[in-house]
Amino acid sequence: MALEITTLSQIKDMVATLPKPDGDAAEAARARQNQLTKPPGSLGKLEEIAVFMTSWQKTDRPKIDTAQALVFAGNHGICDRGVNPFPQAVTHQMVLNFEAGGAAINQLCRANGADLTVVPLDLDTPTQDFTKAPAMTEAETCAAFNTGAAAVDTDADILLLGEMGIGNSTIAAALACASFGGEPRDWVGAGTGSDADGMALKAQVIGEGIARHGTDDPLHVLAALGGREQAAICGAVLAARAASIPVLLDGYICTAAVAPLVATSPSLLDHCLVGHASAEPGHARLTLAMDKQPVLDFAMRLGEGTGAALALGIVRSALACHNGMATFAEAGVADG
Amino acid sequence: MALEITTLSQIKDMVATLPKPDGDAAEAARARQNQLTKPPGSLGKLEEIAVFMTSWQKTDRPKIDTAQALVFAGNHGICDRGVNPFPQAVTHQMVLNFEAGGAAINQLCRANGADLTVVPLDLDTPTQDFTKAPAMTEAETCAAFNTGAAAVDTDADILLLGEMGIGNSTIAAALACASFGGEPRDWVGAGTGSDADGMALKAQVIGEGIARHGTDDPLHVLAALGGREQAAICGAVLAARAASIPVLLDGYICTAAVAPLVATSPSLLDHCLVGHASAEPGHARLTLAMDKQPVLDFAMRLGEGTGAALALGIVRSALACHNGMATFAEAGVADG
Repeated sequence: MALEITTLSQIKDMVATLPKPDGDAAEAARARQNQLTKPPGSLGKLEEIAVFMTSWQKTDRPKIDTAQALVFAGNHGICDRGVNPFPQAVTHQMVLNFEAGGAAINQLCRANGADLTVVPLDLDTPTQDFTKAPAMTEAETCAAFNTGAAAVDTDADILLLGEMGIGNSTIAAALACASFGGEPRDWVGAGTGSDADGMALKAQVIGEGIARHGTDDPLHVLAALGGREQAAICGAVLAARAASIPVLLDGYICTAAVAPLVATSPSLLDHCLVGHASAEPGHARLTLAMDKQPVLDFAMRLGEGTGAALALGIVRSALACHNGMATFAEAGVADG
Repeated sequence: MALEITTLSQIKDMVATLPKPDGDAAEAARARQNQLTKPPGSLGKLEEIAVFMTSWQKTDRPKIDTAQALVFAGNHGICDRGVNPFPQAVTHQMVLNFEAGGAAINQLCRANGADLTVVPLDLDTPTQDFTKAPAMTEAETCAAFNTGAAAVDTDADILLLGEMGIGNSTIAAALACASFGGEPRDWVGAGTGSDADGMALKAQVIGEGIARHGTDDPLHVLAALGGREQAAICGAVLAARAASIPVLLDGYICTAAVAPLVATSPSLLDHCLVGHASAEPGHARLTLAMDKQPVLDFAMRLGEGTGAALALGIVRSALACHNGMATFAEAGVADG
C-alpha cells in the first residue's frame, strides 16, 4: 500500500483526503433489511453490522472472500522499569508460536476464516524507556507506521488487527491516558498478570512519562509513549481506510494504539469496529471515550487479535443473513 | 431416540436416571487451559465454554463434527384473542421459507456449520385458547414431547433448538410467569410487533389463563398454557440429556419452553447453554431466574434458533483454542 510518510504531521494532512462511508449504500442496505423475512430490527446488532459493512464496501451486497489478519509485535524499553512479570524474550517466543500455528490467534483465524500474517518489528531493539527519553524518534515512528501500512492487502474485504508485545499494556494505558485524560491509575489493569504493586508501578511510570513528554500533540504522544506495534497499527488502519476496507480492532492494546489517531480526528476511526470488550478495566473507559461499542464481550484479555478474529465470525453471520435471506415478496410470507 | 412418554409424570421419574456432567473431564480441561500459551483465564468465557463442552462430551478434547439444529413450529389457539398482529398462516409460510432456505436460520446454520431440520407440529390444528380450556390434553402434550425427542440425532455432538409459531411470545410469557411468579406484565414484550395495547392484552389473557389453570404442577402448566413446539423442545432437551449431548437454546421463547422443566428440577437444564440474550424484556428476568448467563447479547428477537446458531460459531472457536493451542512446554515459551 503506497501510504508512506516521512513526518508525523503528514497524518494530519491525510484526514481530508480519506474516503468517507457511502450513505446511499447504507440506506439501500437498511431498506433491504426491512424487506427480509423477519420482524424489522429483529436481527439487532447483526443488521447494524451489515449496514456498516455495506457503507465501506460501497455495495448493497457486502462480502468477505478474503479476511486479512495482521499481528504486529514489538518490544518496549519501559520493561526496564519492571512493569511486566514476563521477560521480553517472550515476545519473540510468541512470534515463533504464531509462526508454528500454536497460539490462540492461529486457531481463531482458522475457525473464522482469516489469513494471518505476523509482523515482528525490530524485536532485538526495544524502544527507549519513556520515563527517560521519547520511546521512539519521529523517524522510527514513521518507519513502523509505514511497515504497518505496507502490510495491508488492499484486495482484502476486511482487515483484522492485533498485537503482541511484553509490556504493552503499560504502553496502552499511557497512550489512552495521554489522549483522553484522567489519572494513570484509571487506565491501568493487570495485563499479563500484574498484582496491586505491579499496577501501582505501571501508573507511576505512566505519570512520569506524561510529565516528561506532555500531551498536547497526539502524534507526538504516539512517538513519545508508544511503541513500534502501536505505530504499525496506526499505519495499517489508515492504509485500510485509504482503500475503504473495514477494520476489526482487537481489545485494549489495539484500541489504545489508535487513540492518538482519534485525538487527531475522531473520523479516522469511522471504518473500524472494536471486536470485543476486553476484561482490562481501561478498555470500557476507552471505548466510551471513542464512542465505540465493542461487538463482543467475552471477558477476554489475551490480545494477539483474538477478539477481532472471534468477531469476524459474527460479521460473516451478519452478511450471510443480509445477502442470503428471502424478502417477504420472494418467500410469499405475509408481512403483517 | 427411544425416550417416549405416555404420561407427563414420567418426566419427573426421569430426573434421577439422566446422565450428570463429568467432573473429572472438566477438571482435566481446566488443567489443560492453564498450560496453553496464554495468561491463565485470558480467553474468558471461551475457556468456560470449552470446559462445559468437555464435561458433557466426557472427553478432554471435545469436538463438533455434527451440529444438529431443530426448529419446531406450532400454532396457538390464544391467537383467537388477537394477541398477534400477524395471521397464524404465517407459521406455515415461514416453514415453507425454512424449507426453501430463505430464512435467517438457514443462513446462520450454513454460516456456522449446523444441519437444520424443521419439524411442523399439526399446524392445521392450533391448540385450544388457554383462557377457555387447557391448551393441550395430556395425550397431545406427550405426543409433541415424543416427536421432539424422536427428532434428536443421538450421534450429533451438539444440539441447537429453535421455534416458530405466531402467538408464541404470549405462550412464552405465560409459561415463564406460571413457572417463576411475578405479574404477567413483567414477562410480556412486543414479540413480532405488538404495541402498548397489544402488550396489555397479552398480559390480560395470561392472567386469565393462570387464574383458570393454576401454577402448582409445572408439567400441568406446560400442557395447560404451552403449545406443541414448547412440548417438543422439552422432549428434545431431555433426549439430548439422555445421550449426554450439550444443547444451545435460542432466546426467550425457547428458554421459556423449558421453564416447566426447570420448575420440575433445575438440574434438567445443566447440559444447556442459552445462546443469546433476547431483546424481549422477559428474557433477562427468565435467564436470571434460571441462573443461566446467555452466550451472546446482540439485541436480537427473531427466534427460529437464530441466537443458538450464532452461538454455535462461538462454541466452535472455544473448542478450536482448547484443542489446537500449544502448551507453554510444547511451544518453548516462558510461562512467567
